[in-house]
Amino acid sequence: MTTPVRFAILIYDGVEPIDIGATYGVLSMARRIRSEIEMLLVAEQPGPVVTANDLTVMAHRGFDDCPPADVLIVTGGPGWSRQCENERVLRFIRDWSRTPALLASVCTGGMILAAAGVLDGHRATTKREVYGTERPPLDVMAERHPDIATETGVLVDDGKVVTGGGVSLAMDVTLYLIDRLCGADVGRETARIIEYAAAREANRQRFA
Amino acid sequence: MTTPVRFAILIYDGVEPIDIGATYGVLSMARRIRSEIEMLLVAEQPGPVVTANDLTVMAHRGFDDCPPADVLIVTGGPGWSRQCENERVLRFIRDWSRTPALLASVCTGGMILAAAGVLDGHRATTKREVYGTERPPLDVMAERHPDIATETGVLVDDGKVVTGGGVSLAMDVTLYLIDRLCGADVGRETARIIEYAAAREANRQRFA
Repeated sequence: MTTPVRFAILIYDGVEPIDIGATYGVLSMARRIRSEIEMLLVAEQPGPVVTANDLTVMAHRGFDDCPPADVLIVTGGPGWSRQCENERVLRFIRDWSRTPALLASVCTGGMILAAAGVLDGHRATTKREVYGTERPPLDVMAERHPDIATETGVLVDDGKVVTGGGVSLAMDVTLYLIDRLCGADVGRETARIIEYAAAREANRQRFA
Repeated sequence: MTTPVRFAILIYDGVEPIDIGATYGVLSMARRIRSEIEMLLVAEQPGPVVTANDLTVMAHRGFDDCPPADVLIVTGGPGWSRQCENERVLRFIRDWSRTPALLASVCTGGMILAAAGVLDGHRATTKREVYGTERPPLDVMAERHPDIATETGVLVDDGKVVTGGGVSLAMDVTLYLIDRLCGADVGRETARIIEYAAAREANRQRFA
């Protein structure tokens, strides 16, 4: 028996479906290499969650029955702004921050971590690239949360907290968390079998 | 009123969740740029579909009530081999091949298109990179279907049929289909806001 390495992924109404694919989906592929990887979707309540643009996915667990995990990954999407005012979500994140688990975010999930206060005193990043009149979330983070040292990057590892850049970079964040929790050989092999090795290297160099 | 550009995405039990994220999820982001983009998940029956590693998603439509679309994208995942023997799925694909719609596949979805016979006489690709003792699906495609001109590549555009490489390259295929159906400016802007521009270029150059 090997010890499971468990990834809990926090979702909510209005999450972007790519944020689920790039976290849960990358881990699903990583399980071909290391079957001790486990992952689950957690939401306020178990059961249906409706993403941006109307895809319904079932959360495996609710806040009340979520098992401990090695990392809690907070996903992004247009629902982030409402979640920043959802006391149950913010309390759930704060409770996790007092456990040995890592905290991580992909895309605008970083805005929810920031609202929970768990990024204060830390370096962090979030989504930058927007369309039309939307303000870059990274600018909003810097403005609302002066105690966060905002940066641009594929991801920012500040030890206890790992935050990622926008949307597709959720794949890079998930691979990085696999590196940290399972070993860099597992992250590298996962990137290879999902044919993401060249893309990952290009993203690394872009911010080198 | 602008005309909708509709993407139907075929899923089934044992699809890889990243294949949904990288198709439906990229289109969800593209809708921020062009709201006339529409997409739906179609399965044999509407309702719950269980992916590889136990994520439940709800198919919007079943085969019997699926509206016409501009393209049918067939997703991949370990369930592909069973679908290659599923006469209802093969017939559904053959019926689409007689409509004006494009046919496309991501990852091992290409194996299902091949089994339906719609790739015979065409150039096509599918997943290559595997772990352990699994045989590369591209080799299996070449062996089982001598009438398909198999190639390696990010994707192969043979006019009526567009097939993609493995797993994460589903993002590149979806962006390419956006290029074809909505214009290259929309594909480029979508790649930018999902922070995939550098990755996309690296994938292009890898196979240039």
